[in-house]
Amino acid sequence: MQSARYTGQGAIKIAEIVQVAPGAGQVQIAVAYTGLCGTDLHVLHGHMDSRVELPAIIGHEMSGRIAAIGDGVTEWAIGDPVTVMPLDWCNECPACLAGNQHVCQNLNFIGIDSPGSLQERWNVPANVVVRLPEGLRLDYAALVEPVAVAVHDVRRASIQAGEKAVVIGGGPIGVLIATTARHFGAEVVVIELDDKRRAAVETLGFEVLDPKTVDQVEWVTNWTGGAGADVVFEVSGAASAVLGATSLCKVRGRLVVVAIHPEPRPIDLQRLFWRELTIIGARVYERTDFEKAIEMVAADVVPASLLITRIEPLENTAAAFEALASGQAMKILIDCQPASIDHATAGAQQ
Amino acid sequence: MQSARYTGQGAIKIAEIVQVAPGAGQVQIAVAYTGLCGTDLHVLHGHMDSRVELPAIIGHEMSGRIAAIGDGVTEWAIGDPVTVMPLDWCNECPACLAGNQHVCQNLNFIGIDSPGSLQERWNVPANVVVRLPEGLRLDYAALVEPVAVAVHDVRRASIQAGEKAVVIGGGPIGVLIATTARHFGAEVVVIELDDKRRAAVETLGFEVLDPKTVDQVEWVTNWTGGAGADVVFEVSGAASAVLGATSLCKVRGRLVVVAIHPEPRPIDLQRLFWRELTIIGARVYERTDFEKAIEMVAADVVPASLLITRIEPLENTAAAFEALASGQAMKILIDCQPASIDHATAGAQQ
Repeated sequence: MQSARYTGQGAIKIAEIVQVAPGAGQVQIAVAYTGLCGTDLHVLHGHMDSRVELPAIIGHEMSGRIAAIGDGVTEWAIGDPVTVMPLDWCNECPACLAGNQHVCQNLNFIGIDSPGSLQERWNVPANVVVRLPEGLRLDYAALVEPVAVAVHDVRRASIQAGEKAVVIGGGPIGVLIATTARHFGAEVVVIELDDKRRAAVETLGFEVLDPKTVDQVEWVTNWTGGAGADVVFEVSGAASAVLGATSLCKVRGRLVVVAIHPEPRPIDLQRLFWRELTIIGARVYERTDFEKAIEMVAADVVPASLLITRIEPLENTAAAFEALASGQAMKILIDCQPASIDHATAGAQQ
Repeated sequence: MQSARYTGQGAIKIAEIVQVAPGAGQVQIAVAYTGLCGTDLHVLHGHMDSRVELPAIIGHEMSGRIAAIGDGVTEWAIGDPVTVMPLDWCNECPACLAGNQHVCQNLNFIGIDSPGSLQERWNVPANVVVRLPEGLRLDYAALVEPVAVAVHDVRRASIQAGEKAVVIGGGPIGVLIATTARHFGAEVVVIELDDKRRAAVETLGFEVLDPKTVDQVEWVTNWTGGAGADVVFEVSGAASAVLGATSLCKVRGRLVVVAIHPEPRPIDLQRLFWRELTIIGARVYERTDFEKAIEMVAADVVPASLLITRIEPLENTAAAFEALASGQAMKILIDCQPASIDHATAGAQQ
């Protein structure tokens, strides 16, 4: 069967590999679609070489159907539509014992620390599989994982209906956070540098600011009657954004740091002190976030057609990553189904 | 009457000033003791020159007795022992309207933004006065304000009994936070560079680490069975401490930034993300913190005799500030009572 593998130093190679039956406690998924994301780009750019074993099949935003069932697995049937919450925890470390399995201290993130879904058939532990409703398009369903990230971020922010939220960064995760925060009842403004992305976010009915032409602090202060925003989501990854983000928050406001900042960043602790702010770290998701994300995708709350720039066959994975890295796309899905399948009806339209 | 006034550029001058009757809604307090603190040093060193009007009577950690009562004030009687919660808020800004008056956006901090207690008689709005129990020593009672800071910090940390807390910095506020956290049921370790301060903190029964000889992360990891601390209080003000503090926290741990960091500081946002930490700003106190602080001082939970290095007369205020700035003292109280009073019995022993 076909697979796309990271072979080091920025390279993705297509390889024919042997299909193995699922082991005890596993299921095999016939992968329909795999979305490419920023974390995959980090892997591709070598930032996670200490975690991946080469050649590495990556990919973790996916949808598919159960294709085979390993010994001892009783809750699944062939053909069930599914996605995967790609977290395999140890259940023994202090974080797990405290109920925070999703940030297990020995977490196996499936698709980085172990093989991912950029292949036709994928064997995973049965307990990471999440059921999709029949009738949900499998291309849209490949968005469930990033939507779950957004749901988790918004839940970490403890958003209340009627609150005002600022999202710094209008890429896929920024759009999903804005969408989720609005779905949870917040008023949302998005700040985005790129003209095309700003235009795309505007089509979703969000107020969008261009930080090159608008004084953000003044705008947010006026918008909030002098108070400042209840919540700010930092999704840009820019040092200047995280430094300025505290100035957008109201007294006792919350700043959720969503973007990955590999280097320590200067933070305005004077402002943190002065306004008694809270800065919140948010990582991956919990099962409840996944369930909520499926509900939101199924209810068309998520602007899937806007987010999915295009769908490419598995053999085009390397070019698709290049397009993503150069900012030409919001979300590219890789169609992982064998060429013999009628993809339009088997995947996207189901 | 006598007063000690900041006259700019690091200078404190003793001056005879006219005693004015309390206005409507005010009371006049015969000040017994005023504690000198780090914030006063910031004023003295010119860091708050934009806020103070020269010559400025500073001081806000105090105790005394009601000496005169302005028109319209009914709840106080001459001789009542009192302290002051030196926050005068506007009741109109968004922070006040949201119930966060203590961090009012137009806050008048009495003792910085308006005259303080380094004088024999002090007129303040009646609503900032807090009753002390009869029988509480007035020298000890001058510690209520910094204890209230510590109570507020510990409450902002949402400390639960049985949790493990690290306090970085063993000065007066560090000791009070450690004391309060222990009083709230936490196990506490203090990290302090200075040998003398470390020895002083040890006499209070705390585990104390010397960061020059102990690997903090390793020690805390072992202490917590591999989890990390539930709460870390950053009280040192050092850039290296706040950068390293996140590495001491468990998954979902809380870092409370207590020290003032005038410059933006590098923060390990990768660790914030990875462990889903929360960084919490804490400023001043609320009424409930003051009430709790009085209860703790009255019950001898607070190590007042260890903290109060010495008591100096008002005319020695400048020298007392010098001693404080050079690290020769934990807490110095200024005896603000006129020379005609027998201080030992009128103040300290009451």
